[in-house]
Amino acid sequence: MGKLLIVGTVAFDAIETPFGKTDKILGGAATFIGLAASQFRVKSAIVSVVGEDFPQDYLNLLTEKNIDISGLQVIKGGKTFFWSGKYHNDLNSRDTLSTELNVLADFTPVVPNNFKDADVLMLGNLHPDTQLSVINQMEERPKLIVLDTMNFWMDHALEALKEVIKHIDVITINDEEARQLTGEHSLVRAAEKIHVMGPKFVVIKKGEHGALLFHKSKVFFAPALPLEEVFDPTGAGDTFAGGFTGYLAESENISFNNLKSAVIHGSNLASFCVERFGTERMEKLEKKEVNNRLLQFKELTQFDIELQ
Amino acid sequence: MGKLLIVGTVAFDAIETPFGKTDKILGGAATFIGLAASQFRVKSAIVSVVGEDFPQDYLNLLTEKNIDISGLQVIKGGKTFFWSGKYHNDLNSRDTLSTELNVLADFTPVVPNNFKDADVLMLGNLHPDTQLSVINQMEERPKLIVLDTMNFWMDHALEALKEVIKHIDVITINDEEARQLTGEHSLVRAAEKIHVMGPKFVVIKKGEHGALLFHKSKVFFAPALPLEEVFDPTGAGDTFAGGFTGYLAESENISFNNLKSAVIHGSNLASFCVERFGTERMEKLEKKEVNNRLLQFKELTQFDIELQ
Repeated sequence: MGKLLIVGTVAFDAIETPFGKTDKILGGAATFIGLAASQFRVKSAIVSVVGEDFPQDYLNLLTEKNIDISGLQVIKGGKTFFWSGKYHNDLNSRDTLSTELNVLADFTPVVPNNFKDADVLMLGNLHPDTQLSVINQMEERPKLIVLDTMNFWMDHALEALKEVIKHIDVITINDEEARQLTGEHSLVRAAEKIHVMGPKFVVIKKGEHGALLFHKSKVFFAPALPLEEVFDPTGAGDTFAGGFTGYLAESENISFNNLKSAVIHGSNLASFCVERFGTERMEKLEKKEVNNRLLQFKELTQFDIELQ
Repeated sequence: MGKLLIVGTVAFDAIETPFGKTDKILGGAATFIGLAASQFRVKSAIVSVVGEDFPQDYLNLLTEKNIDISGLQVIKGGKTFFWSGKYHNDLNSRDTLSTELNVLADFTPVVPNNFKDADVLMLGNLHPDTQLSVINQMEERPKLIVLDTMNFWMDHALEALKEVIKHIDVITINDEEARQLTGEHSLVRAAEKIHVMGPKFVVIKKGEHGALLFHKSKVFFAPALPLEEVFDPTGAGDTFAGGFTGYLAESENISFNNLKSAVIHGSNLASFCVERFGTERMEKLEKKEVNNRLLQFKELTQFDIELQ
């Protein structure tokens, strides 16, 4: 059993989709990553920050999932990071209605001593300087460092982003962000350019169109499971990252073949996440459901062809 | 070796992409379907129409590929169907610059006697009444009838389209067309509704995002091969259909498992088609290249996961 250190936001979200809307509910990249990773036999910890307004129930939920929250700072008198957004009818795009950084504005991550030797470090979407400061706190270099980011940092902190990207093994990024980062429309070429920037592995997420894993000249593709209905895409990318890193921390094998399996596990868990608002589906997800859907992934993609 | 009857346009195309433009070159749905199907051991024939302006060289090309063109009418004094279009920068959308129906306006298909017992009938995109008239000319019902269509007929001949759809086994349609035909955004639900309209098998083409094959509650997904560069998407959907039906006519097996393989063969051939303008790449495509790329498809999609 490996150790997985997760850095990212723990937050309140308020979400509106064509199917309904929520008040403030539990959200944040680290939350979704942690819940997804809890499906695997790993020792995991979250490094993050919340305000005094953060409910004890939410903290209990994380500890019940065996997530170490000794690195989750609770700021007295502070307010928890809040995001609200509204999805368009096709659920492929959204407008941010409000972003209140609150305690996140002054967040300085502190890695607990017992996780400075983590095997896998998952850097959720945050300021690249914050992500880098976590790498620098590790006692020894993790076997695998995975970074998620977004276009906002390409617009506002590109040099810092390029710096942290030098130090990581895997980047997870969506297709438009890969194009923005590299100026290449072809995702094959974009991945080639990102390889040169540092990461040995490049994961390009295409939402409902699946995910691509690039490693040197090799490429692997995992579809998203075709669903009757996507209810709320919030957290799908982070859930993917949590499944990806959770599986790798458990299996302690970072071969390309095992990363393929990790991409499937990530896609599989993301397919559950989008079935309900926020973290609702992931909180109660059972191993049996996960395994059944992995079989669906096999049926969806596996074929026999004899060459002539 | 099965018999494959192909109905569709044989045409002139003039194409503009971000990478260049062509004068009038060989195009048309039946042309692309026939060239793709010629990669398989099948007896194939094209039913179509051209004008007197259609070059003998193009006719020779088709016969050299062992395509029977006795059902390809050459209208004296007539002009061949002409389409010109310009692709946008992302190559996912295009504007039609010009459509000159010419001899296609009065086309009445006549199935040659020696193909009235075809095993597989591929109805390329044409007026639904024209497609239906071909079905009605068959001596016995083909083992498999595959139909391709487009949004234009949904706008202008919906009832006729619904009528022909009742009589077919497989429909190939793109994602937006599937949504338009059914009013369902979810492709899973769209496929369910199309099943009810007639076809046992529904293939939904998503361009660079691959293709889905639905059959009752089963679903299979074939990705598009990630390419460094897509040069010209013209004919990719028809090439897919030609690979799909060519493989099925050769193998004479219409089980779901074999249709999966057919989808992979179709996707594989389409990946070549887009590498050059028009039919250029397909005209000289060799079996060895085809087989090598099938191996790439396997590597792209196949994985091992052990359930715990």
